[in-house]
Amino acid sequence: MSVNDSRKAVVLVSGGLDSATVLAHARAEGCACYCLTFDYGQRHRVELEAARRVAASLGAADHRVVRLDLSWMGGSALTDLSIPVPEKPSEGIPVTYVPARNTVFLSIALGWAEVQGAQDIFIGANAVDYSGYPDCRPEYMEAFERLANLATRAAVEGRRVRVRTPLMQMRKADIIREGVRLGVDYSLTSSCYQPDAAGRACGACDSCRLRAAGFRAAGVPDPASYARPPAV
Amino acid sequence: MSVNDSRKAVVLVSGGLDSATVLAHARAEGCACYCLTFDYGQRHRVELEAARRVAASLGAADHRVVRLDLSWMGGSALTDLSIPVPEKPSEGIPVTYVPARNTVFLSIALGWAEVQGAQDIFIGANAVDYSGYPDCRPEYMEAFERLANLATRAAVEGRRVRVRTPLMQMRKADIIREGVRLGVDYSLTSSCYQPDAAGRACGACDSCRLRAAGFRAAGVPDPASYARPPAV
Repeated sequence: MSVNDSRKAVVLVSGGLDSATVLAHARAEGCACYCLTFDYGQRHRVELEAARRVAASLGAADHRVVRLDLSWMGGSALTDLSIPVPEKPSEGIPVTYVPARNTVFLSIALGWAEVQGAQDIFIGANAVDYSGYPDCRPEYMEAFERLANLATRAAVEGRRVRVRTPLMQMRKADIIREGVRLGVDYSLTSSCYQPDAAGRACGACDSCRLRAAGFRAAGVPDPASYARPPAV
Repeated sequence: MSVNDSRKAVVLVSGGLDSATVLAHARAEGCACYCLTFDYGQRHRVELEAARRVAASLGAADHRVVRLDLSWMGGSALTDLSIPVPEKPSEGIPVTYVPARNTVFLSIALGWAEVQGAQDIFIGANAVDYSGYPDCRPEYMEAFERLANLATRAAVEGRRVRVRTPLMQMRKADIIREGVRLGVDYSLTSSCYQPDAAGRACGACDSCRLRAAGFRAAGVPDPASYARPPAV
């Protein structure tokens, strides 16, 4: 335990590789990490088990899997099984975009951060090798931080919270190299939007493509099990 | 149906008097209203039934009661039964404050607004006769609107959303007079934080005090049933 272990952070952990790396980063900074995962009606629920493994392996102080169904809302291939997950790169924002997802997740993280007295909320957002989701951009994160520091009793009392996005400007390959350096076991993570019944990644969705290309560029073997060789 | 009925709004409806008035206001503007209520682990779950009655009576186009437990987080007398609801006015922000509640509610409203193509999100926040909650202030609402217009695909494509707070600067008595003018049936609403088993309001909590004082100042009979005469 480092001297900083009294510093607390809330970390959004999806079960994918970015958030695993962010958690390792926050742990390396010496934060006691309160990990938050959402069971939101996503088709790739297998990521919930990955999130549990990741949080446990990186020594989370606490880990909550919050049930918050967003599937009633529709509007996304990740929560509406009638909308297929694209297997080719899309023009513009892909249909895997989930309306307001990061705003919802960050707002619940904000509440928990206030209750825990955490100064930081970590999120694995990236605006380089990413799918173009609007709520992953730096200007969005700055606006959320500004909101957060008006929203709570903690803010009124002068206890500010920061939204930390250490991966924002990193290439996927650099994220993976950083994770390896920090001891992340990527075999515990799950990236695919539509794994098969055996849990194997499809190799074709946006998330599989970004992952596989990142591992290839990093020169690191991808421990994921693919149903088909990934389209990189 | 007015000519504006093609205009859609998402309206946060708690079951209390402010949000009922806001819904009537949005309907009077001619909006098709998509009402949203949260079953968040509040001790006064009776307000969920009130929300259903209010939405139906004012002609909501749709009404969803979203289950999103916030009680695991703690930190509020409304979600933690071990923290008593104060029966005297408090100094500063009272313990009935729920961490990040409006941020969570507005973020889900934002997602639904995007899916529905709604241009407005209505919320019954008030910064005059209120409990001092930080996420009811105008500067908070402005920051949320700014965030909202960075967060979504709709925003990226130029379809802006507005956060509408028509009650923000009104006295409680004026809210009630406005609601009466708009045909709100306040007997359908429920304001108390700790109603008894028969559904009668306590008359002592902050919410009961604000309500009862508002009706008295407005010169309108309060149709609520109180277990004890309200402390005004």
